[in-house]
Amino acid sequence: MHIMEHTTEFRVRYAETDQMGVVYYANYLIWFEVARTEFFRERGVEYKKLEDEENIYLPVVESYCRYKSPLRYDDVVTVHTKLASVGASRITFEYSVKSAALVNAVGWTKHAFIDAQGKPIKVPAKVRKIFEEGN
Amino acid sequence: MHIMEHTTEFRVRYAETDQMGVVYYANYLIWFEVARTEFFRERGVEYKKLEDEENIYLPVVESYCRYKSPLRYDDVVTVHTKLASVGASRITFEYSVKSAALVNAVGWTKHAFIDAQGKPIKVPAKVRKIFEEGN
Amino acid sequence: MHIMEHTTEFRVRYAETDQMGVVYYANYLIWFEVARTEFFRERGVEYKKLEDEENIYLPVVESYCRYKSPLRYDDVVTVHTKLASVGASRITFEYSVKSAALVNAVGWTKHAFIDAQGKPIKVPAKVRKIFEEGN
Amino acid sequence: MHIMEHTTEFRVRYAETDQMGVVYYANYLIWFEVARTEFFRERGVEYKKLEDEENIYLPVVESYCRYKSPLRYDDVVTVHTKLASVGASRITFEYSVKSAALVNAVGWTKHAFIDAQGKPIKVPAKVRKIFEEGN
Repeated sequence: MHIMEHTTEFRVRYAETDQMGVVYYANYLIWFEVARTEFFRERGVEYKKLEDEENIYLPVVESYCRYKSPLRYDDVVTVHTKLASVGASRITFEYSVKSAALVNAVGWTKHAFIDAQGKPIKVPAKVRKIFEEGN
Repeated sequence: MHIMEHTTEFRVRYAETDQMGVVYYANYLIWFEVARTEFFRERGVEYKKLEDEENIYLPVVESYCRYKSPLRYDDVVTVHTKLASVGASRITFEYSVKSAALVNAVGWTKHAFIDAQGKPIKVPAKVRKIFEEGN
Repeated sequence: MHIMEHTTEFRVRYAETDQMGVVYYANYLIWFEVARTEFFRERGVEYKKLEDEENIYLPVVESYCRYKSPLRYDDVVTVHTKLASVGASRITFEYSVKSAALVNAVGWTKHAFIDAQGKPIKVPAKVRKIFEEGN
Repeated sequence: MHIMEHTTEFRVRYAETDQMGVVYYANYLIWFEVARTEFFRERGVEYKKLEDEENIYLPVVESYCRYKSPLRYDDVVTVHTKLASVGASRITFEYSVKSAALVNAVGWTKHAFIDAQGKPIKVPAKVRKIFEEGN
């Protein structure tokens, strides 16, 4: 199984800094979400349509981030995303946040799959397929 | 008609600052929203229930803010809120953001009333009543 | 004087939505800021360097936004930016937020120029030049 | 050593919800920060003054959150905060986010101590003292 990372690139927004002069720590979780959306899109799955057309939702059940080196306003950031594991009803993404050659942060999020009523459901076949084909 | 202002008090969050060392300008609009919720509650209207139980929504159609003096992390802020005008299908709130004796910002938001399908509706009687009694 | 608009494009983040299912109104001000940064960059002025190297800051002194049509998660948004006026110590940007052929919002921000001590300063020559050449 | 938790209470802001109708996951980290500030204040340490007067900063080096039960707009939330461990140059806070009798989320943040130049420093005596006296 070969692993292809997905990469999302953007610039740090002024709004994302705090008075320490660096990116406020909660914003990394927002970037993880942006990266997940693009990860899915590149593999032919539009997360928006999962919600709108199939009533499948992926709430985060756990999040973790290690902040190694601060990012600043206007830095060009890339987030590298991998589907790290897929269980019966949970999936885990791993992220690496980089600028230039530096790894600024690493983290992961674990997700459940639920329906519109909030009831847990199995990982949909199309998502499982992404993992099995190597993501 | 006597005018009673509603006052909401809180402290500036670290997350609300930016690298200029002051509160980022978009956060004032978030505070206006917090103040609106409390304004309604004090007059016996829970905005949450308007949405959940009556399918009435108040999207913002215009916002304005004038920033007079910056606020900083941990400052104790009060937002003074008034229902400035009520039309057939629009209402306008006015806000004054203060810390100690200083007026840090003033602004207003204009709102439409819509139903769950996004269709414009008249200002509900209970909201109109707040205004007529003097808010 | 010919006017060239600058255009910034991005997708709506999940984090930018609220429970009404549309973009929360304060986020438009964040997008205006992203658009300003890119407006300057395209004209050879890095706002980051204005702050870091020249100790020139552009705090917002007024903001206005009219919300015409809601935006949703994953929509592709473009913000069109113009330098609308330049006074002795103030400048005003105008923004138009679009998706497909629709204008979703319009707004403006007025800025002062200050130094690192917060003292008002004149609009720097390089910023004035952008306007005079037609922005 | 007796352990006294600190409790911070507030209501969920509309801005903190997303289109799933619940609080967006990154906001829990913002609440952790609000809770830390109040934890310190209650023990006689103003974090603001640590930064402003002593040039001591507490950047987050790791964060973790487990989301157990979603929170909604206008919910009354309490965050319970404990200083879980104090090392030579690192401290860890633990948080429990509750509404009514329910535990909605638990998490922790690990912090370094640095000076104004970003150089790591030892945990200051006054912070160590909080821990030794039982927090």
